[in-house]
Amino acid sequence: MYDFTFHNPTKIIFGADTEQQIGQELAAAGIKKVLLLSGQGSAKKSGLLDRVIACLTAAGITFVALEGVVSNPMLSHARQGVALAKKEAVEAILAVGGGSVLDEAKAIAVGATTEIDVWEFFTGREVTAALPVFAIMTIAATGSEMNRNAVLTNEATRQKYNIASIHVHPRVSILNPVLTHTVPPDYTAYSAVDAIAHVLEGYCTKQPGTRLQDRLVESIVKTVMETTDLILQNPNHAEARASFMWAATLALNGLTPAGIGPYSFPNHMIEHSLSALYNIPHGAGLAIVIPAWMRWYHSRNPEQFTRCSRELFGLPTPAAGINALEEWFREIKAPVRLGEVGIPARDIPIISENAHGLARQWGIAELYTPAAIGEILQLAV
Amino acid sequence: MYDFTFHNPTKIIFGADTEQQIGQELAAAGIKKVLLLSGQGSAKKSGLLDRVIACLTAAGITFVALEGVVSNPMLSHARQGVALAKKEAVEAILAVGGGSVLDEAKAIAVGATTEIDVWEFFTGREVTAALPVFAIMTIAATGSEMNRNAVLTNEATRQKYNIASIHVHPRVSILNPVLTHTVPPDYTAYSAVDAIAHVLEGYCTKQPGTRLQDRLVESIVKTVMETTDLILQNPNHAEARASFMWAATLALNGLTPAGIGPYSFPNHMIEHSLSALYNIPHGAGLAIVIPAWMRWYHSRNPEQFTRCSRELFGLPTPAAGINALEEWFREIKAPVRLGEVGIPARDIPIISENAHGLARQWGIAELYTPAAIGEILQLAV
Repeated sequence: MYDFTFHNPTKIIFGADTEQQIGQELAAAGIKKVLLLSGQGSAKKSGLLDRVIACLTAAGITFVALEGVVSNPMLSHARQGVALAKKEAVEAILAVGGGSVLDEAKAIAVGATTEIDVWEFFTGREVTAALPVFAIMTIAATGSEMNRNAVLTNEATRQKYNIASIHVHPRVSILNPVLTHTVPPDYTAYSAVDAIAHVLEGYCTKQPGTRLQDRLVESIVKTVMETTDLILQNPNHAEARASFMWAATLALNGLTPAGIGPYSFPNHMIEHSLSALYNIPHGAGLAIVIPAWMRWYHSRNPEQFTRCSRELFGLPTPAAGINALEEWFREIKAPVRLGEVGIPARDIPIISENAHGLARQWGIAELYTPAAIGEILQLAV
Repeated sequence: MYDFTFHNPTKIIFGADTEQQIGQELAAAGIKKVLLLSGQGSAKKSGLLDRVIACLTAAGITFVALEGVVSNPMLSHARQGVALAKKEAVEAILAVGGGSVLDEAKAIAVGATTEIDVWEFFTGREVTAALPVFAIMTIAATGSEMNRNAVLTNEATRQKYNIASIHVHPRVSILNPVLTHTVPPDYTAYSAVDAIAHVLEGYCTKQPGTRLQDRLVESIVKTVMETTDLILQNPNHAEARASFMWAATLALNGLTPAGIGPYSFPNHMIEHSLSALYNIPHGAGLAIVIPAWMRWYHSRNPEQFTRCSRELFGLPTPAAGINALEEWFREIKAPVRLGEVGIPARDIPIISENAHGLARQWGIAELYTPAAIGEILQLAV
């Protein structure tokens, strides 16, 4: 065990119809006007946005709406949100959607409190304030609903970078697993890969010897794998959708890394370049990167990879466990090779350079040189 | 999965020498004067209290000290604390000690904000305010450092009752596992039993079918059992002490019951009577009650008890698992029969009536009639 600080003040309201509580939660926080942020129209089509608006109105809360957040949310759209939030003097940001909408909401919350351009915070400037953020989630995957992180893509520079600050921890996140029943099979699979990656990154890169945290990770991975299988058989499997949603939240809420000491996020580092350059779904990119990275890395941390194989798959060697994980990715129809999403092997040098930029920002550039990243990606050809 | 709300705003600072951070944490919260509450003198003898006072002084925080909190903390002493907190106009309560000190600190924090006698809140009145509570823990067991609960014993009425309120969630809890290295073997064992009970109560009384929460519980129990064995072999086993401490915190911070639906705390209900009537250590009382209660109850929830036996002990039947748990309690030298702590079987009717009073408060009096509690206690003779 290593020293740590754990502080997660987000209030989670989990269950059917819980979106009906957003008005009272905002009112209890003394908020009278919000920026209502949403994505590509599915929340409107499903009727969710109308229900949320009715709830806001009933609670006496006014709003200004901004739609159009995309997967891998864009800096340009976040800047629109910042301008709108300032012009309308909103007191909070309410995200209705998935992790992308919430991440952009966090970015807007930061940008709305300052004259500094929001991208500066994604490239190293410390976040010192933000408007309060509230969320109603329609997909379980990113963990953004219970953490201090947000990822944004600068489409001009093709950088997918992140912020981390207590100021963007959502005040309240509403998780109604019934809203996720309509998530299609491909995005269910990508979400599963993302949640698994969130816990396995730390688990595979830390040193062995933190037994409780290892078990928490294994509990989450097993739950995500079991429930994904059940959901792909029956998209309306209520218990599986609910367990999946809560597992995905716990996968990146700070619980599993607390006390594990130094660790890194190399798969996310490389994947951010794939989705920044090719705009592929984040979870799809991770499914490609993870088996390749594991094959490249496992001999550096053999005890932990042996444990992983044994505990997750009942298999004796790291190689067998990695094969089993890749096979499961194939079964849930996640891509596991660059070619499957149309990325040519000849682009590997460009991707490696891009990823190395993030490796520098995350302090892992010594191990993850462009050449090393190229070696990893070659294993995904 | 059932609907739930999870909200745990306590900041945990975990690691060696972390007590040195209390001054800056109080100052950051704008607090200038605290009631410094401690127990029977061990914090003074060890030098911890002096270090804390030096840290407060360096941060410009004044204090008034109150010592003498006992295990199973007493209402009369809490009332002294309330009077002192009011007289000295302190702005927060700082507990330095174990779960008993912190529980009494929470009671004082409630009582100090009102003219209503503090015991009223333990017998049903809603807590609507409290002074902020801060904690430096010297023993891991109760989970009080990261939850909204506090237990107090009214020595006049021989009632050991509790409060639960967001207002008494510690603002900051400092967990330095090195401070627990001096916890003697008997209290290490009692703490282990207490932490295990905190997760097994929900696990054994809820309905089957919440796979993630089951796994989280099993992760905590296995960790507590393994680390207890290591600590009893070597009291200075740093990793074991640290993992034990964090496991005990997670065992009662709201994580494991979130989403499990209805459950109850019958072992605590009965044990509270044992320690209220005979002033035995809480964990010792639990070690006596748990095997007896399990033998009485398991046929009401066979699937869950079968899982428990399989996952914790690799055994096929509930009875085999219960025997194994009892045997482990014996191995760590926790008592498992009433006679071992000097409680005569003829007292069972008195204990049963006392426990039934708490069963009524907790809404489980229909199942736990005095006769039923008597049946359970007969299994502990």
